Amino acid sequence: MNPLVGLIMGSTSDWGTLEHAANTLETLGVPHEIRVVSAHRTPDLLFEYAATAEARGLEVIIAGAGGAAHLPGMVAAKTLLPVLGVPVQSQALNGLDSLLSIVQMPGGIPVGTLAIGKAGAINAALLAAALLGNKYPAIREAARSFRTRQTAQVLDQPDPRSLTR
Amino acid sequence: MNPLVGLIMGSTSDWGTLEHAANTLETLGVPHEIRVVSAHRTPDLLFEYAATAEARGLEVIIAGAGGAAHLPGMVAAKTLLPVLGVPVQSQALNGLDSLLSIVQMPGGIPVGTLAIGKAGAINAALLAAALLGNKYPAIREAARSFRTRQTAQVLDQPDPRSLTR
Amino acid sequence: MNPLVGLIMGSTSDWGTLEHAANTLETLGVPHEIRVVSAHRTPDLLFEYAATAEARGLEVIIAGAGGAAHLPGMVAAKTLLPVLGVPVQSQALNGLDSLLSIVQMPGGIPVGTLAIGKAGAINAALLAAALLGNKYPAIREAARSFRTRQTAQVLDQPDPRSLTR
Amino acid sequence: MNPLVGLIMGSTSDWGTLEHAANTLETLGVPHEIRVVSAHRTPDLLFEYAATAEARGLEVIIAGAGGAAHLPGMVAAKTLLPVLGVPVQSQALNGLDSLLSIVQMPGGIPVGTLAIGKAGAINAALLAAALLGNKYPAIREAARSFRTRQTAQVLDQPDPRSLTR
Amino acid sequence: MNPLVGLIMGSTSDWGTLEHAANTLETLGVPHEIRVVSAHRTPDLLFEYAATAEARGLEVIIAGAGGAAHLPGMVAAKTLLPVLGVPVQSQALNGLDSLLSIVQMPGGIPVGTLAIGKAGAINAALLAAALLGNKYPAIREAARSFRTRQTAQVLDQPDPRSLTR
Amino acid sequence: MNPLVGLIMGSTSDWGTLEHAANTLETLGVPHEIRVVSAHRTPDLLFEYAATAEARGLEVIIAGAGGAAHLPGMVAAKTLLPVLGVPVQSQALNGLDSLLSIVQMPGGIPVGTLAIGKAGAINAALLAAALLGNKYPAIREAARSFRTRQTAQVLDQPDPRSLTR
Amino acid sequence: MNPLVGLIMGSTSDWGTLEHAANTLETLGVPHEIRVVSAHRTPDLLFEYAATAEARGLEVIIAGAGGAAHLPGMVAAKTLLPVLGVPVQSQALNGLDSLLSIVQMPGGIPVGTLAIGKAGAINAALLAAALLGNKYPAIREAARSFRTRQTAQVLDQPDPRSLTR
Amino acid sequence: MNPLVGLIMGSTSDWGTLEHAANTLETLGVPHEIRVVSAHRTPDLLFEYAATAEARGLEVIIAGAGGAAHLPGMVAAKTLLPVLGVPVQSQALNGLDSLLSIVQMPGGIPVGTLAIGKAGAINAALLAAALLGNKYPAIREAARSFRTRQTAQVLDQPDPRSLTR
Repeated sequence: MNPLVGLIMGSTSDWGTLEHAANTLETLGVPHEIRVVSAHRTPDLLFEYAATAEARGLEVIIAGAGGAAHLPGMVAAKTLLPVLGVPVQSQALNGLDSLLSIVQMPGGIPVGTLAIGKAGAINAALLAAALLGNKYPAIREAARSFRTRQTAQVLDQPDPRSLTR
Repeated sequence: MNPLVGLIMGSTSDWGTLEHAANTLETLGVPHEIRVVSAHRTPDLLFEYAATAEARGLEVIIAGAGGAAHLPGMVAAKTLLPVLGVPVQSQALNGLDSLLSIVQMPGGIPVGTLAIGKAGAINAALLAAALLGNKYPAIREAARSFRTRQTAQVLDQPDPRSLTR
Repeated sequence: MNPLVGLIMGSTSDWGTLEHAANTLETLGVPHEIRVVSAHRTPDLLFEYAATAEARGLEVIIAGAGGAAHLPGMVAAKTLLPVLGVPVQSQALNGLDSLLSIVQMPGGIPVGTLAIGKAGAINAALLAAALLGNKYPAIREAARSFRTRQTAQVLDQPDPRSLTR
Repeated sequence: MNPLVGLIMGSTSDWGTLEHAANTLETLGVPHEIRVVSAHRTPDLLFEYAATAEARGLEVIIAGAGGAAHLPGMVAAKTLLPVLGVPVQSQALNGLDSLLSIVQMPGGIPVGTLAIGKAGAINAALLAAALLGNKYPAIREAARSFRTRQTAQVLDQPDPRSLTR
Repeated sequence: MNPLVGLIMGSTSDWGTLEHAANTLETLGVPHEIRVVSAHRTPDLLFEYAATAEARGLEVIIAGAGGAAHLPGMVAAKTLLPVLGVPVQSQALNGLDSLLSIVQMPGGIPVGTLAIGKAGAINAALLAAALLGNKYPAIREAARSFRTRQTAQVLDQPDPRSLTR
Repeated sequence: MNPLVGLIMGSTSDWGTLEHAANTLETLGVPHEIRVVSAHRTPDLLFEYAATAEARGLEVIIAGAGGAAHLPGMVAAKTLLPVLGVPVQSQALNGLDSLLSIVQMPGGIPVGTLAIGKAGAINAALLAAALLGNKYPAIREAARSFRTRQTAQVLDQPDPRSLTR
Repeated sequence: MNPLVGLIMGSTSDWGTLEHAANTLETLGVPHEIRVVSAHRTPDLLFEYAATAEARGLEVIIAGAGGAAHLPGMVAAKTLLPVLGVPVQSQALNGLDSLLSIVQMPGGIPVGTLAIGKAGAINAALLAAALLGNKYPAIREAARSFRTRQTAQVLDQPDPRSLTR
Repeated sequence: MNPLVGLIMGSTSDWGTLEHAANTLETLGVPHEIRVVSAHRTPDLLFEYAATAEARGLEVIIAGAGGAAHLPGMVAAKTLLPVLGVPVQSQALNGLDSLLSIVQMPGGIPVGTLAIGKAGAINAALLAAALLGNKYPAIREAARSFRTRQTAQVLDQPDPRSLTR
């Protein structure tokens, strides 16, 4: 099936974070493609990727990047598709720089930003499923099952006292 | 027409920020409803609002709040619809608390977070339009026109030197 | 004896922090119960837990959570019992997000917030004992003994120079 | 009636914040006393105030201070009563220094910390009422009424659109 | 004379900051051009501007932007000319977001970043003059005169006590 | 010889930092004493220590503490001797809480604050020597020798390239 | 009488802060001189001032500066006298940059740092008096009187309730 | 060939960061020299180094330092050459102090600041090459090749999924 979600990242070093998005999309059965696209080192590829995404049938783009993370915002500048940004935890500032560089977009060009790191990557996939779910009932139902299982897992957790070493 | 977007805020004092979301939805012709729902002062209303949103035909919820801003995350905990969070600028910490309280959601429950304040409110509306645009071509086209006009406005700006007092 | 303190946490991964609260309550002889209740993944359980706490005889709730930590504030929204919040140290932002999400509550719904991590967990138990001590003299006296021993331990410390490796 | 709450602050310049605690205690009918006690400029008064508070019949101390705010923690070091701390918004750092100086207490001496500024002052009074409510049913019921009125006020709020200038 | 410095900004609202760069270039006699180029609202113009700058004879680009400030970094991605970034003071976060978005560039694409606001704008012009001064002796000498006058102004300052109101 | 510097810390766990102050005082031949004095766990000892320091012949107090670090400020509140504060690096917030709790003292009670951690401990000893050096020429000369050696060590450093693994 | 304290600042614009140091020195009868010395714009003057201070009979230097505040640290690099640093509140970052630039000195060159702004300026003067007081009994006694009056002022403060507008 | 770039650092402990600048200059064929020069421990060497740099034929100075990093700014105060600053990641505050101490220079003395740590060191070398490239075509072409290779490396990266362990 044609991919609905384009999952891109600025560097292969971001894959340790973004694979959690890929795995979650997989679990939910959301067709997706994965690419390394760097805003700074491959700006022309970034522009072409974003500018053609809608015509290629993508409906959401998830972009992860760290530090002065310009990838999500620049993709959003070149497409009308919803863009979700995942701040990758950076070395010195722990991802605070990544977060602010992604979330503080000026009025006019939106990026829906998730949490720093792994949690944000998982949630980018879940948010993609949530918005696709309005149009694709099977994805909505997959998300519903995911949530039900997740709730059950918490309810089934053992008494924390049993966890003390 | 039935509202597609539910725009909620924790207090009428947040309206100065969220009205920019309402105005942008208006401009784009996206049908929406507006409610004051406080996570802390009306938790039952919050739960009922979120739990019934999907059945009532809403497809996106935009939630704005400030300080220890729990509204977007708690709405997201009770619905499978996409939830977009707008951090309202707070008095002491300028919205950094609002931002972190909204964006740093644990893996499992996503909130797409926008910038602090007015820019974030505008962009929540634009992101809602972007995701609805996959299903409603008229909204996609309205967003396209908005973007075209916006680009033209920048290109038409006067020489900055003429702005010096 | 019926528990007076309800000690809850958002995830079993928070137990490494919250067990210090449990141990301190144990030391002070304060009857308590321990539960995993997630604001985001089990919101209904959270509401039911908080709404019935007073009727079940609890007199204090200690709630620990990390990141966008909504658990303490949402419990406080559903009970008139005093709620004490423990910010769990988070991965990227070291608990600054947890702290701000718990402490910056809007006027109307209070959460008494303790320090990030282990120190906060210990102190949540001590603060619970302090407030219960007004009504239960045995708990006040247990806290008094605890404090006396603690002071003695500092006074008995060896000359720091003997600690140099 | 004998005061149950001692409300102290480091300087009369903090009264603009702490008067919101006093007003809320007044509304709830909680008997209280108000004093200016400076940790740094009147340390002996601070020690005497804290050391005698329990014997004088106080059951809670609310302490507000700004900057390197040592008042709440030093009071807590000299009493077994529950101490609630209100960080006053400081000039340069907007109360972040006040917050960290109050909340980051080491394990052993607890201070229940509220939000920076006015919201924290209101909530310190509400938390005092919550903990006193376990022993004094009239205070619990006053808090219950306060909460009910507060919820009703949100539910009765006008349509935000009517607020647009 | 052909401009050597291209001074661009994301919005005319940044002119209040960037005019200090323009004025300083003027004082130093450095030929320059001024344009509004928005990374997010006119990405194609940005790419074209940056990609053709070297061929048009520019030797330095000064780019100012605020919030999630992507302009300097994206210009740098499309040119080999030295790019200097001026973080404009933003509304909520006072320019900390602008600063981190500009300075925390990944290895491979450099942006020389100056201080937030007016001081940074002045210094971007002075740094442009410093680097052009290696090739254009007249600019080096103009910078030398500027520095000499600046030092003299400090040495000539009146006794501060005469400034007390 | 009678100690001139009183070196105190809130806990033996701070010795890993403060021993660098002790070692530096040793190197400079400044007579000193070392004690564990906790503002929160031994407040009476703190008051007695500070109140009698001047009469016992101490001329400087160096106080190190972490987190909500109240030790230096409370010592300063009880003595007219110069007090130097060393922020110990804390677990969650890396000493930013320690630093702000020590340095942001209100006007009226001064604490001369040094850097977080080891560098601050060394410098507290050097600053103590600097101020004692006005009265005790031998200490001034010891400091002068220390500085001369320190400068020589930098000048004698090998070419950094020889350090590459 | 020969000045014992050299009070310097980076710019006359810092006088609004540093005049509080001058006024406090005046109140305490500490002889002092006042100069504008800029680390960046008059580096040679800075070096000469610092290098000759000891020989000219100064015993303490108070240096105030804002932003990337290098004045106190560079003075300390050129003298063995005790140097006290006052971080001036900066425009964008409210003095956090000034504070970190002054306090985070590397081991080897100490600067005793005071609070940001007016409180820090007052306290720099009081700390200068504290350290001079070891050698000059009259200054110690002046500081003692100052402290006694200060304590009395707090004790004499009116009931805060009388302050409510 | 005579060095065009002077690469200096405050301590040999900064070499782990700055060697990335040296390696990048090497790769680009930019002649350079490397020195340890400490602003605080060898201020006279710093002044002499900076004051004679222009006459010795240097055209750019790259200065790296950590904590209260005064080296780049003080070099800039003593030369008209362009100065590029590299904030070295510090122990407690992860380089935020280094960054602010370098970038927040007052108007009048510019330092072009790069990212914290290794990325900043690489980029300082690239920015030096960019500005030298205006005058030395061979350096411009070396930078062009470097950029082309860098882009190719991203385009040649394997499918991230192949990286999953």
